[in-house]
Amino acid sequence: MTRFALTLEFDGGPFMGLQRQDHGPSVQQCVEEAVQAITGETVTMHSAGRTDSGVHALAMRSHVDVEKDIAPFRLMQALNAVLRPNPIAVTACEVKPGDWHARFSCVGRAYEYRIVNRRAPLTLEKGRAWHIARPIDAEAMHRAAQALVGFHDFTTFRSAHCQARDPLKTLDRLDVRREGDRVIVEAAARSFLHHQVRSMVGTLALVGQGQWREEQVGEALAAQDRAALGLNAPSEGLYFVRAAYPEE
Amino acid sequence: MTRFALTLEFDGGPFMGLQRQDHGPSVQQCVEEAVQAITGETVTMHSAGRTDSGVHALAMRSHVDVEKDIAPFRLMQALNAVLRPNPIAVTACEVKPGDWHARFSCVGRAYEYRIVNRRAPLTLEKGRAWHIARPIDAEAMHRAAQALVGFHDFTTFRSAHCQARDPLKTLDRLDVRREGDRVIVEAAARSFLHHQVRSMVGTLALVGQGQWREEQVGEALAAQDRAALGLNAPSEGLYFVRAAYPEE
Repeated sequence: MTRFALTLEFDGGPFMGLQRQDHGPSVQQCVEEAVQAITGETVTMHSAGRTDSGVHALAMRSHVDVEKDIAPFRLMQALNAVLRPNPIAVTACEVKPGDWHARFSCVGRAYEYRIVNRRAPLTLEKGRAWHIARPIDAEAMHRAAQALVGFHDFTTFRSAHCQARDPLKTLDRLDVRREGDRVIVEAAARSFLHHQVRSMVGTLALVGQGQWREEQVGEALAAQDRAALGLNAPSEGLYFVRAAYPEE
Repeated sequence: MTRFALTLEFDGGPFMGLQRQDHGPSVQQCVEEAVQAITGETVTMHSAGRTDSGVHALAMRSHVDVEKDIAPFRLMQALNAVLRPNPIAVTACEVKPGDWHARFSCVGRAYEYRIVNRRAPLTLEKGRAWHIARPIDAEAMHRAAQALVGFHDFTTFRSAHCQARDPLKTLDRLDVRREGDRVIVEAAARSFLHHQVRSMVGTLALVGQGQWREEQVGEALAAQDRAALGLNAPSEGLYFVRAAYPEE
């Protein structure tokens, strides 16, 4: 039995999410079926993050255990061949020790959220970013975001369906910057609650549009109440960009 | 009669090209029909460049003449509303003097060509870049490209269907750079021949893969013979990025 760590890039648009769902196609199902097509084995894929329907990944980290004797490079090539035409690519594949776990060994996760801030609708970036037509103030968003950095009860920014035991998390970084008509939000933490990044970005966008005062973000956090949430940003602007492991 | 200059962004994927075609949808047809829907007038759109099927634009410049009394901002908003769901956006609209011409007043054009150079297939950038799986040497491509810069007979790099009177052009810039697994080619000139950028990029890619010596690019140019061409790069990696006008 060999444990293979996979690095996955995918367009989340056609999927119900990364993890298997009863009601539609998932990235997990596609990869597991591709492994089965190559090895004849039924495998379960584990991943660093659980992304929602429409959320993209530039470098998700996952693992599968395979009995068949196959070199990592050949497995990667075979997976990419079988996965076509699904918009999922295995960009790296390596052998890991049996106690390495894509989810439980992961000590850091990073997301990027992309906003296009202009009057005109999206063309090339349709389904790849959140389009906000009203001018938004990225500097105000960045200042307001700092109230969320640190160890907090993130109940306000948590989905009603979140399965985490408790809402206490340490947010390491929440940076907002403008690049022309792009506004990019970068979030990093050991782990996130369900919908946490989208909830934070949606709320910051209200600050950016002047609908919320900057201090209201900290007040909403302190309320520890989902009803205090401003807005959940749409899934298509969110990208899982990095998973960190102690040995790497 | 008011002359409106439009800045257009579009995903070239669903179109037969920018200019009107008998055999399929074009960007020109979509915009002309949108103007007609708004003003009731039959207009002809003129543009700085003529892009092929599948070629994208980040900032094409075009113009239309309209009788109806309408402010540029309202025309832009109305066009964007009517153009949905076509992946065409009007990102700017301004009034120009009647002797300003999107094509004939244009004194400089710039294109960008995007290559993704990695084993894994494309997901989020499918249809937005040329995927080259074999490692390519961007520095060798950049050095080889310099043989094409300057005033030359570009017959070798010209489509058999090119309608330009003569093949003599001055290429101002042809730069190749690597950004991680991306290789970006930037080309600038007063004007280009049909397929010139794609022909140059395709040939440079042979140098990048070591199939051509760097000096062969200059030799192919000197041959002034289409048969000496290496390869035409696919349309989906090409972006029209800038048109320059003397007064701007």
